[in-house]
Amino acid sequence: MELRDMLFMVKNGEISIEEAEKYFRKKSFEEMGYAKVDMQREIRSGYPEVVYCSGKADDHLLHIFETLYRENGEVLGTRASKEQYTLVKQSIPEAAYDEISRILKVEKPGKQKRGRIAVCTAGTADIPVAEEAAQTAEYFGNFVERVYDVGVSGLHRLLAKIEEIRLANCVVAVAGMEGALASVIGGLVERPVIAVPTSVGYGASMGGISALLTMINSCANGIAVVNIDNGYGAGYMASQINRLAEREL
Amino acid sequence: MELRDMLFMVKNGEISIEEAEKYFRKKSFEEMGYAKVDMQREIRSGYPEVVYCSGKADDHLLHIFETLYRENGEVLGTRASKEQYTLVKQSIPEAAYDEISRILKVEKPGKQKRGRIAVCTAGTADIPVAEEAAQTAEYFGNFVERVYDVGVSGLHRLLAKIEEIRLANCVVAVAGMEGALASVIGGLVERPVIAVPTSVGYGASMGGISALLTMINSCANGIAVVNIDNGYGAGYMASQINRLAEREL
Amino acid sequence: MELRDMLFMVKNGEISIEEAEKYFRKKSFEEMGYAKVDMQREIRSGYPEVVYCSGKADDHLLHIFETLYRENGEVLGTRASKEQYTLVKQSIPEAAYDEISRILKVEKPGKQKRGRIAVCTAGTADIPVAEEAAQTAEYFGNFVERVYDVGVSGLHRLLAKIEEIRLANCVVAVAGMEGALASVIGGLVERPVIAVPTSVGYGASMGGISALLTMINSCANGIAVVNIDNGYGAGYMASQINRLAEREL
Amino acid sequence: MELRDMLFMVKNGEISIEEAEKYFRKKSFEEMGYAKVDMQREIRSGYPEVVYCSGKADDHLLHIFETLYRENGEVLGTRASKEQYTLVKQSIPEAAYDEISRILKVEKPGKQKRGRIAVCTAGTADIPVAEEAAQTAEYFGNFVERVYDVGVSGLHRLLAKIEEIRLANCVVAVAGMEGALASVIGGLVERPVIAVPTSVGYGASMGGISALLTMINSCANGIAVVNIDNGYGAGYMASQINRLAEREL
Amino acid sequence: MELRDMLFMVKNGEISIEEAEKYFRKKSFEEMGYAKVDMQREIRSGYPEVVYCSGKADDHLLHIFETLYRENGEVLGTRASKEQYTLVKQSIPEAAYDEISRILKVEKPGKQKRGRIAVCTAGTADIPVAEEAAQTAEYFGNFVERVYDVGVSGLHRLLAKIEEIRLANCVVAVAGMEGALASVIGGLVERPVIAVPTSVGYGASMGGISALLTMINSCANGIAVVNIDNGYGAGYMASQINRLAEREL
Amino acid sequence: MELRDMLFMVKNGEISIEEAEKYFRKKSFEEMGYAKVDMQREIRSGYPEVVYCSGKADDHLLHIFETLYRENGEVLGTRASKEQYTLVKQSIPEAAYDEISRILKVEKPGKQKRGRIAVCTAGTADIPVAEEAAQTAEYFGNFVERVYDVGVSGLHRLLAKIEEIRLANCVVAVAGMEGALASVIGGLVERPVIAVPTSVGYGASMGGISALLTMINSCANGIAVVNIDNGYGAGYMASQINRLAEREL
Amino acid sequence: MELRDMLFMVKNGEISIEEAEKYFRKKSFEEMGYAKVDMQREIRSGYPEVVYCSGKADDHLLHIFETLYRENGEVLGTRASKEQYTLVKQSIPEAAYDEISRILKVEKPGKQKRGRIAVCTAGTADIPVAEEAAQTAEYFGNFVERVYDVGVSGLHRLLAKIEEIRLANCVVAVAGMEGALASVIGGLVERPVIAVPTSVGYGASMGGISALLTMINSCANGIAVVNIDNGYGAGYMASQINRLAEREL
Amino acid sequence: MELRDMLFMVKNGEISIEEAEKYFRKKSFEEMGYAKVDMQREIRSGYPEVVYCSGKADDHLLHIFETLYRENGEVLGTRASKEQYTLVKQSIPEAAYDEISRILKVEKPGKQKRGRIAVCTAGTADIPVAEEAAQTAEYFGNFVERVYDVGVSGLHRLLAKIEEIRLANCVVAVAGMEGALASVIGGLVERPVIAVPTSVGYGASMGGISALLTMINSCANGIAVVNIDNGYGAGYMASQINRLAEREL
Repeated sequence: MELRDMLFMVKNGEISIEEAEKYFRKKSFEEMGYAKVDMQREIRSGYPEVVYCSGKADDHLLHIFETLYRENGEVLGTRASKEQYTLVKQSIPEAAYDEISRILKVEKPGKQKRGRIAVCTAGTADIPVAEEAAQTAEYFGNFVERVYDVGVSGLHRLLAKIEEIRLANCVVAVAGMEGALASVIGGLVERPVIAVPTSVGYGASMGGISALLTMINSCANGIAVVNIDNGYGAGYMASQINRLAEREL
Repeated sequence: MELRDMLFMVKNGEISIEEAEKYFRKKSFEEMGYAKVDMQREIRSGYPEVVYCSGKADDHLLHIFETLYRENGEVLGTRASKEQYTLVKQSIPEAAYDEISRILKVEKPGKQKRGRIAVCTAGTADIPVAEEAAQTAEYFGNFVERVYDVGVSGLHRLLAKIEEIRLANCVVAVAGMEGALASVIGGLVERPVIAVPTSVGYGASMGGISALLTMINSCANGIAVVNIDNGYGAGYMASQINRLAEREL
Repeated sequence: MELRDMLFMVKNGEISIEEAEKYFRKKSFEEMGYAKVDMQREIRSGYPEVVYCSGKADDHLLHIFETLYRENGEVLGTRASKEQYTLVKQSIPEAAYDEISRILKVEKPGKQKRGRIAVCTAGTADIPVAEEAAQTAEYFGNFVERVYDVGVSGLHRLLAKIEEIRLANCVVAVAGMEGALASVIGGLVERPVIAVPTSVGYGASMGGISALLTMINSCANGIAVVNIDNGYGAGYMASQINRLAEREL
Repeated sequence: MELRDMLFMVKNGEISIEEAEKYFRKKSFEEMGYAKVDMQREIRSGYPEVVYCSGKADDHLLHIFETLYRENGEVLGTRASKEQYTLVKQSIPEAAYDEISRILKVEKPGKQKRGRIAVCTAGTADIPVAEEAAQTAEYFGNFVERVYDVGVSGLHRLLAKIEEIRLANCVVAVAGMEGALASVIGGLVERPVIAVPTSVGYGASMGGISALLTMINSCANGIAVVNIDNGYGAGYMASQINRLAEREL
Repeated sequence: MELRDMLFMVKNGEISIEEAEKYFRKKSFEEMGYAKVDMQREIRSGYPEVVYCSGKADDHLLHIFETLYRENGEVLGTRASKEQYTLVKQSIPEAAYDEISRILKVEKPGKQKRGRIAVCTAGTADIPVAEEAAQTAEYFGNFVERVYDVGVSGLHRLLAKIEEIRLANCVVAVAGMEGALASVIGGLVERPVIAVPTSVGYGASMGGISALLTMINSCANGIAVVNIDNGYGAGYMASQINRLAEREL
Repeated sequence: MELRDMLFMVKNGEISIEEAEKYFRKKSFEEMGYAKVDMQREIRSGYPEVVYCSGKADDHLLHIFETLYRENGEVLGTRASKEQYTLVKQSIPEAAYDEISRILKVEKPGKQKRGRIAVCTAGTADIPVAEEAAQTAEYFGNFVERVYDVGVSGLHRLLAKIEEIRLANCVVAVAGMEGALASVIGGLVERPVIAVPTSVGYGASMGGISALLTMINSCANGIAVVNIDNGYGAGYMASQINRLAEREL
Repeated sequence: MELRDMLFMVKNGEISIEEAEKYFRKKSFEEMGYAKVDMQREIRSGYPEVVYCSGKADDHLLHIFETLYRENGEVLGTRASKEQYTLVKQSIPEAAYDEISRILKVEKPGKQKRGRIAVCTAGTADIPVAEEAAQTAEYFGNFVERVYDVGVSGLHRLLAKIEEIRLANCVVAVAGMEGALASVIGGLVERPVIAVPTSVGYGASMGGISALLTMINSCANGIAVVNIDNGYGAGYMASQINRLAEREL
Repeated sequence: MELRDMLFMVKNGEISIEEAEKYFRKKSFEEMGYAKVDMQREIRSGYPEVVYCSGKADDHLLHIFETLYRENGEVLGTRASKEQYTLVKQSIPEAAYDEISRILKVEKPGKQKRGRIAVCTAGTADIPVAEEAAQTAEYFGNFVERVYDVGVSGLHRLLAKIEEIRLANCVVAVAGMEGALASVIGGLVERPVIAVPTSVGYGASMGGISALLTMINSCANGIAVVNIDNGYGAGYMASQINRLAEREL
């Protein structure tokens, strides 16, 4: 029953004040709930549900992909295995899989890419995480400039590319080991930098905790950090920022 | 001497090619250095140097304030003590100090505030950090909406304010103890959320590390994290995002 | 304006359906918010707001105490200093302060104590935390049995008291250092044990983290843990459980 | 020899005072020991021994299941593998196994479920731990309401179910990643909340330590925490509380 | 009432079997309790109660000292302040205080020192902890050989003393910073080594945690570790071992 | 060549003073070195070299076993795999292997066991570590009393055995999970307790770190700790203490 | 285009001031960049690129080896697998592989080894890391003295070799477990010591973190630390120091 | 008595074989001991004893300064307070004190400074640690180039100075917060870099642990790390390296 219907019933005396009051008390939670937020997701922001594939049961995954594909005409999955790709492909032949980023998706063709996000990595081993960020951002309609393998141990590589990076509305800096890349980029560009620590490293890198601490303690301005290896999260936030920058006021 | 002036002198023969070459070779670093970044800082992004006051020697602090005030007509200092305020006030009577945020500044009057940043706190004890964020953003010309004391232990307070928060281009979520506020806001709004863990708490809060971990591991999308108690850093990044959102394309 | 008033206005045609709908959409948060939870707090559960005094500004604290005292006729404050007691006492002469637990309160006389909660400590240094738990529980109308200084280094002391502890509906086990008390009690009684690690200890006790880990890893059944030194939290939960046990079905 | 027999012998002079004294000194430990606690387990509390299957040798496991089944007519095993199920099934055809919770049990039919415990999870990946809690509680004769996948990143889902959760005597909140669910539920319900951190997560979740810290530092009242992934422990304690609530005074 | 008295009453029919049975069931805890362990403490092992002075209230401390002095004719206190010494001295003029070890004691004169314990330190800053160990052992009647400032950065100092150390039944190795002393001694002597990490150090020594880890991971045989700065604990255990070595079979 | 042989040659003029001097200068390290420690190992203490098998190359392991067996007539290896047993068995048919403790050894028959060491475990999962301790101690000629599965969650089991434990010269307490066993035993016996944390546990047990911290922070006297799962180290030190206790003065 | 050319064009009016300004802004970064640093690597220092093989894709690895071999006539790869060796060998028959150090290389014959670096290990399990250091240093033209298995639990072995170690210009000390070797060597030699913690150990060694802390906190002078298991890094730095020592002024 | 004398006595029968054997066993340790290492310190390496002043008792400190001054004609003290300076000055008027580095010394005039060490800092707050390094190196006769405030958040400052830094034989990189400076310098220079993390920072910098981890995990070659704030240790090792580079072969 809709809110409006209830109000009509009150007006017409079809329901007592007491019963209506009870209804509204109970409704107050539900009201704010499901539909409203869903509306935001689908209509206002254009960010449809994204599927975290890792660990999902086969039939569960397939069902989710089929449902989202039917409703939205496209669907994005992260952390997918090759086996999951084979599975989904049998049902949705348009499904595509990228082994580097482990992204499994069905994407509407001819999507326009707007604005500019720079995705940078310190080393080549950081590329899988960076690709998760880049492809997530592209799926959400952003233009992405990739600037890979520009870690601080060979600073010239970064400096040679810095003007390209500066053109972006937002920079994603992906680095493992000591994670110094984010600080150096943060000191060279004026746009927000989203730092992604990766689990790349050995010894005392502690699975990315060391890089995370480096980035959180950065002495440069305009840097914020997401979870270790969380390329998706960085791509999502970069998309939010790039869209803000490109919207027409 | 400005780059442009030097070029005029070359063009007009006031300086030989050899001397100009020597200047550019030598200058290439310095030029790219201080002045250039200054240009960026001052002209392109409008972010002048900000002074971290804590621990600075008196004469050093005074000199920096006087220099920046002379060049820019205004200056922003963070983590200042009341004693430092008294010191600066004697030289610059226009200096103002806020005991909550510990911000010491001289600000140009009539500054226009654009766009909208929401700064939220979980509890009242988080307000000093939030004020550092809010006042930093205001100094940089952003409009700030304060939404304080909306922690998740009394969710109704947050929900009652959620529509106001949704109007912002960017949200700063400040929380100590378990730091769950950022996740809940991240699940309710579609704009980027900058999470600031605070050192508020006791027991196993470990000076903010616990809140930091909560925020980094957030299951919600669109959240990135700055250092513990780093209100300034959050205000700076929120300003970067808000400006992008408000710029004319 | 009250929910009920609004419904009368709808019924009487004093407001249009559209305006009422708008009101309810907007109100849904506020309405669900403050008042509702307040109702729960005050009417259903009988747990009024409790004041965490530490770090509160003097006028803020005084205002809160006066307001809560006026509305509820009593008020409980935790982590209060002696100075805060003096302050509140000037305004509310009935205020009482306990230096051990640091509880500052105004309490209705003749409160009946129901059921039974056992509050145990390993050593005498854990007593301040235990008293915070015990006095919180007593304030909420529970009968509390104190069993102090029964740590495992002298097991006979605990065993001599075990029958008394077994009479309780719920046990609060307070211990610092290695925190083994909770495990031993958990193995001897059949009621829920709320374990409170304390910051008592030295060396590698790391401010209570060591005791916290001991309690979380307990091999005994029926133990759950609250934050380090969080006597209030343990007293609150023990009160919830004891009330459940004593309610008439 | 029974205590009573010894006393008769003393009375009848069949044993000297000295020998009896020696017997009682030695007996004092044994007395309090085995039989007594067993009595408690079986008769007073109705919680029979539960088998932690993981890592047990095949013949050892089988022997324990057969013995407990013979004595109690039912037996509960946790963390069992499918192979262990096949093993036990051959000897006890009534044995049942649940792959999600990894619970292997033989249960008396027609068990009555009393009271109400709500078991909630943040995500679907937390369900195995939640099921261990739920099925443990059900085995001990409690009615369990499951409320899954109501994490704080989509708050509407939780709010839509909150009235159902409020009906419970005790809530078990199961969450990995940042673990904020417990705080939010703790702020919305008035019954004790047992928080179970899970090892679900990646990056800086550190196998559940991050969620554990979040829950321990919760700003909400009435929350206590058990070990990471310890669904059994939460189900056990929830059962203790629910039974207290449902007992006849 | 004594156990023996009760048995006489049973024998003489002054009490029924049922009442006696009830008494013994209840007594089983108490009986095993206080007196028995006390007997051990005082008679069998000769280790009377030791007072941890730090943080004790003045009247509490004084009462304990007076009581123990009256009963035992001597008393040992650790971690005492100079103020506590002045306090106790007023009541017990025989009290003596050592500022280095912070031991406050009243000791029976002419105590014989048996066997041999070697107490070694890496540096001079470790001496306060070493003295707590040494003086504790001496109070308990052991002969102590002090070998201070023999840290591994100047190995010759240790090697010059190694024959003296080898004469001991047990070695206490006290070291802060990197704590390597224990390993080196462990490799050179054949007696048990009790390693005491100290909080001496800076930087990444983390208040002694680093030295503790070094000692726990020692590659040498025959080393066990006590808590950081726990000189008393090391002295106590060294005394246990030395007495075993010196007892007449 | 032996030291004594060289001296005879000097005495008899078979070697010049200069050559002897050169020998002693060069030898001073080696002599002090290998042979001397060997002498200690073999003659004074009777502790021959023990082989840590894990990770050793096949031919290396075989060579070490053959050499030590030839020189000493027996040899003890720890952390051996079944494959290593098969390997050694082919060369030394007397080799024996215990799957629980993973000890691989060749032992002289008819070895007398002296004194008494009690080896206790909290649970059955701790037995492999306990067996490594017990069998190491037995190999070194000590009598060992095993007291297994007496963890504090069922205190009666421990109390029923406490008199047996008290007969030992030294107690080895092996426990994982929360590790409270060592504290409880430490409070009940007057002999030195060597605590061995094990990696048994789950959730926040962190591979034994939690149990290690519990034991290090123990409030009981007379406890020292070895590394996680280091049964060998505990057995070795227990042997040192038991031998001291049993030696004839 | 050269800087000088641009200046001539400005002088001659062939380019506008604005365009020249733009050029110099852009140039300022490039200037310092690529070529310059590359020159250092290849010409000035003689340290060619080294390949970290682990995790590299087969064709990627092969391409890098072929390219570097063609350009430099030799190539060094670390952390290579046997499979990678087989792969490279097919294309470059001169490739050699060492299973211990996991170094895969093609090396110019007849390389002269200069100066002296001592590489020491505590145990035999540390040898793989030590060999990575030693072979890296040898590849770079340094003479290396290996001193293995001289850990502090048998100090005589180290002392017997100390004079050889003292001949080196630089010492690499490789140790796991408690890592005390570096401190002891640091106290005995006057040359710089590069300490390499290894992940060798068990229990609380935490994958080398414990050894790392020991080395960082060393009380000896002249010790600096590289990452856990980072033999390559130690060999590289030792080579830098040895070359400095051997250069002709 | 000399070794040679002893051998003569053996030869001449003035001492028995047994007594000589005993002598050599005992001597073997002393031989290697005290005098030998001392000789190294004073004669071979020219590094006299340095005094760590912090925490030393007044008379102890004074005595050490006077003794070392008398023997060496100069003395270096680190971590000295102003009060300690006043104390020493009264006895040794030539004593000088630097408040920044907290170095208290008496230095021979006209000391020649050889070679070149570059000491760099990220920020101005790192200067005290850098000065401890620089002044230590200068005291040991090295020429030091200071390059301060060149942190990576303003990379141009570092690049402008990079050629000066490249002239040094060895670089000391001092940085707090995220500590990225060492990596960037390591990537730009070919000489060994000694990285010194400082405790400068806030939030999650954890007293320098974060910077330490950054430096240990550096992706650049030729970096080794000393303890947090250990300027002295870095200056000492830099001096060792610089001397090697400047020695005449």
